[in-house]
Amino acid sequence: MRIGFGEDTHRLEPGRALWLGGVHIPSERGARAHSDGDVLLHALCDALLSACALGDIGVLFPDTDARWKDLQSRVILEAVLERVARAGYRVSQLSGVVTLDRPKLSPHRATIQARLAELLSLPEERVGLTFKTSEGLAPDHVQARCMALLEAL
Amino acid sequence: MRIGFGEDTHRLEPGRALWLGGVHIPSERGARAHSDGDVLLHALCDALLSACALGDIGVLFPDTDARWKDLQSRVILEAVLERVARAGYRVSQLSGVVTLDRPKLSPHRATIQARLAELLSLPEERVGLTFKTSEGLAPDHVQARCMALLEAL
Amino acid sequence: MRIGFGEDTHRLEPGRALWLGGVHIPSERGARAHSDGDVLLHALCDALLSACALGDIGVLFPDTDARWKDLQSRVILEAVLERVARAGYRVSQLSGVVTLDRPKLSPHRATIQARLAELLSLPEERVGLTFKTSEGLAPDHVQARCMALLEAL
Ligand SMILES: [Mg+2]
Ligand SMILES: [Mg+2]
Ligand SMILES: [Mg+2]
Repeated sequence: MRIGFGEDTHRLEPGRALWLGGVHIPSERGARAHSDGDVLLHALCDALLSACALGDIGVLFPDTDARWKDLQSRVILEAVLERVARAGYRVSQLSGVVTLDRPKLSPHRATIQARLAELLSLPEERVGLTFKTSEGLAPDHVQARCMALLEAL
Repeated sequence: MRIGFGEDTHRLEPGRALWLGGVHIPSERGARAHSDGDVLLHALCDALLSACALGDIGVLFPDTDARWKDLQSRVILEAVLERVARAGYRVSQLSGVVTLDRPKLSPHRATIQARLAELLSLPEERVGLTFKTSEGLAPDHVQARCMALLEAL
Repeated sequence: MRIGFGEDTHRLEPGRALWLGGVHIPSERGARAHSDGDVLLHALCDALLSACALGDIGVLFPDTDARWKDLQSRVILEAVLERVARAGYRVSQLSGVVTLDRPKLSPHRATIQARLAELLSLPEERVGLTFKTSEGLAPDHVQARCMALLEAL
C-alpha cells in the first residue's frame, strides 16, 4: 500500500476555459496555464507520482516544452497511470478538495466524480470530492489538494 | 480501509466566539460563520465525507438554510458519523493541523484532543493535533486541514 | 498502521541559508527562523508526531528556548523518530510537497530524496517529493506539506 499527497494552484483569468477533473465547468474565468490548467487532475497526478516517488508533473511535462502546450490533462493522467502501473501500483481511492470562490462547484460534483471514476477505473464511491471557497485568501486563484491511496498490482 | 482529506477556512472577526474541535477557546476574535465556525470539526467532517464519497458539509448543511443558523458543529459531526456508519465505515484515526496566529493554541491541545476523542469514540492516542501560525500569510483567518483513516465496520 | 499530516511555512529573507530536507539549497533568500527553518523537515516531523498524537515540534522545541537557536532540523527529526519509536511505530513512507517560487527545486530532488531516505532509513522509492510554485499567492514564503505512513514496530 502507498499513500500520496499532491497540490496545485493556478491564477484565474477571463477568456480561459475552466477544467476540473476532466470536466469543463462553465465560468467567466479559467486557469492561466500552459496546459488546460486542470488543478484537480494536476494535484491528483502529483499525488500518484509522489506515492511512487516518481517525481512530479512539472518535471515530466515541463511547461517550457511546446509539445505540452494546451495539453489536455487527461493525457497527463494517462501517462502518470502508466508509470504508476510500471512501478507496480494502482489507484485504490482518492480524496480531493477544490477551493474556488465562483462558480459554485457542488452542482458539478456528480459529473466530476463520474468522470474521475471513469479515468481511474474506480467505483464512484472511491472518488471523494469536497469544495470550498477561499474566504478572501485567494479570490483570483483556483486550488486543489488531493490524497490518493494505492495498492500493489 | 479508507482515507479522507478535508480543509476549512474562516475569517476572524471581533465579537465572535472561537470554537476548535468542539472546545471554546478564549480569544479576542472568532470565526465569521453561519454555524459556530469550528474549522477543525468542519475539516474533519469533510475528510470523513470525502473518504466515503458522500459530498461535503456545504451541501449537507447549506449556510443558506435558516435551520443551520448558529448550529453547533458537533451536531454536524454526529450527522456525518451516522452517514459514514451507514456507508459501512468508522473512524480509526485522525491527524489535523490548525493554523492561527493568536491566541497560542498549544495550551488547549489536551482539551481539544480529549473532546475529539470523546466525540469520535477514539482513544486519545489516535487523535493527532498540530498547531501553526500563518507567518504573515493569513493573519485574519483561522484554517484547518485534516486527514482521517477509516476502517470497515 | 498510522497516518500523519503536517505542514510548515517560513518567510524568506536575504542573507539566510535555505535548507530543505536536510540539504542546503543555493538561494538568494532563506527561511527566517529560530532554527535552520527547514520547512520540509518541520512538516515531516509534525506529520510523524501527529500520527502518534505526541504534540508538535512547536511545543517540543519552543523557539523561545535559547537551546534550540540555530538548531539543525535533522537533530529535531532524530528526537522525533526516537519518540515515535517509543510509541511503537516507524516510518514506512512519506509524500511531501514544497511550494517555493525561486530557485527551481527539481534539480535538487534526487539529493533531497537521498538525504531523507538516509535520515529515515527508508528506500528512496518510499520518499515522494513534488515541487510547486505559489502562482502569486506566497512569493515571499517557503511552504511544505507532508503526509507520512507509519507501521507498528
Ligand atoms: Mg497545474
Ligand atoms: Mg466552515
Ligand atoms: Mg518551521
